[in-house]
Amino acid sequence: MATLNIPFFTTISDRFRVILASGSPRRRELLDRLNLHYEVIPSDFAEDLDKAQFASAGDYVLENAIIKAQDVYQRVKGQSDKPLLIIGADTVVVNSAGTILEKPASEQDAICTLKGLSGKSNTVFTGVCLIVGSLDGTKDPVVERAVEATQVVFGDLDDSIVEAYVATGEPMDKAGSYAYQSLACFFVKEIKGDYYNVVGFPCARFYQMLLDLHHQGHF
Amino acid sequence: MATLNIPFFTTISDRFRVILASGSPRRRELLDRLNLHYEVIPSDFAEDLDKAQFASAGDYVLENAIIKAQDVYQRVKGQSDKPLLIIGADTVVVNSAGTILEKPASEQDAICTLKGLSGKSNTVFTGVCLIVGSLDGTKDPVVERAVEATQVVFGDLDDSIVEAYVATGEPMDKAGSYAYQSLACFFVKEIKGDYYNVVGFPCARFYQMLLDLHHQGHF
Repeated sequence: MATLNIPFFTTISDRFRVILASGSPRRRELLDRLNLHYEVIPSDFAEDLDKAQFASAGDYVLENAIIKAQDVYQRVKGQSDKPLLIIGADTVVVNSAGTILEKPASEQDAICTLKGLSGKSNTVFTGVCLIVGSLDGTKDPVVERAVEATQVVFGDLDDSIVEAYVATGEPMDKAGSYAYQSLACFFVKEIKGDYYNVVGFPCARFYQMLLDLHHQGHF
Repeated sequence: MATLNIPFFTTISDRFRVILASGSPRRRELLDRLNLHYEVIPSDFAEDLDKAQFASAGDYVLENAIIKAQDVYQRVKGQSDKPLLIIGADTVVVNSAGTILEKPASEQDAICTLKGLSGKSNTVFTGVCLIVGSLDGTKDPVVERAVEATQVVFGDLDDSIVEAYVATGEPMDKAGSYAYQSLACFFVKEIKGDYYNVVGFPCARFYQMLLDLHHQGHF
């Protein structure tokens, strides 16, 4: 695939050390669509915050994204002759009852989760945090944050499609037990929001955040 | 990618000669996600219907899908010892003024189209037509049809992203001058409907059509 050659991204790549604080291959694949040179340094953060302490799933993913970005920022700052631009992101799936869905513990758990999502909508939230060092090193870094939400509506799942889907193994490492970018295409009826947010990285929002920072003179 | 092993799809593959009446590689890639053995025989239909004769873009794509499926059905029937299952599909992009957008004629045309879509929503329509021969060959084929619509909302496009996008060459062979499955990810804000419909094949609707035919006893 060609990359999108946005002129001010060349400036970012030249003047900043850009780091994606996430090991997700799907996030890398999407970032690779831009002319942005970056490294990958996954955060060590254990993602063990108490979900009950947050007013919403959006607040929770945003806090995770901020901690991931700050974790990598603290580890790397001082080791770089360029200012840093750190990209942190975190994604969760929330069912219609407001429960955050983890990766399934077993095939039976995946079957239960998928049957619970059948005929209903769930929401995917991604928090994005950008930490941008100042070009001359004299100011504190700027922290930009955003949350993107996409509603995902499941069709009515009969037992045969649930069993066939779980048998592929695909649900086992997916939060919410499904991957819309893959075989869940046959039973997700519609979405409302950014498709790429469901995949794990809200591309349009990310571009808009960088454009805003550009217009504010940060690069 | 693993395929979704739906039990009744094995029956279809065993008992029917399944033909996709479209040469679109994106449709093939999506159909390949199912355990459905099929051939590709693109329709010869010139797609030259007078758009002005249709009350809506949905009617227009559906008629195209029906003609494509019937074209291949007529060519192949009698040459097969199995009943036929023909899959026809057609996709168009319609702007907020109701105009069907073709592939751009030039880079300048693509720039104009993209600037016209900026900050507005357009709608992608796909018509799907299935022609299903009777198992014992004594009855007329069943014709199933459906139209899927997905709204696509563009962010505000500045000149630099339009120019960068057109420079990639990606818009040049795309109706509507964009590909959401690719670099348009950075400027499409949200969609309402099936993502795969925007790619050109509404997977969930297609699965539902086959499931309905299965429940009606056609396979």
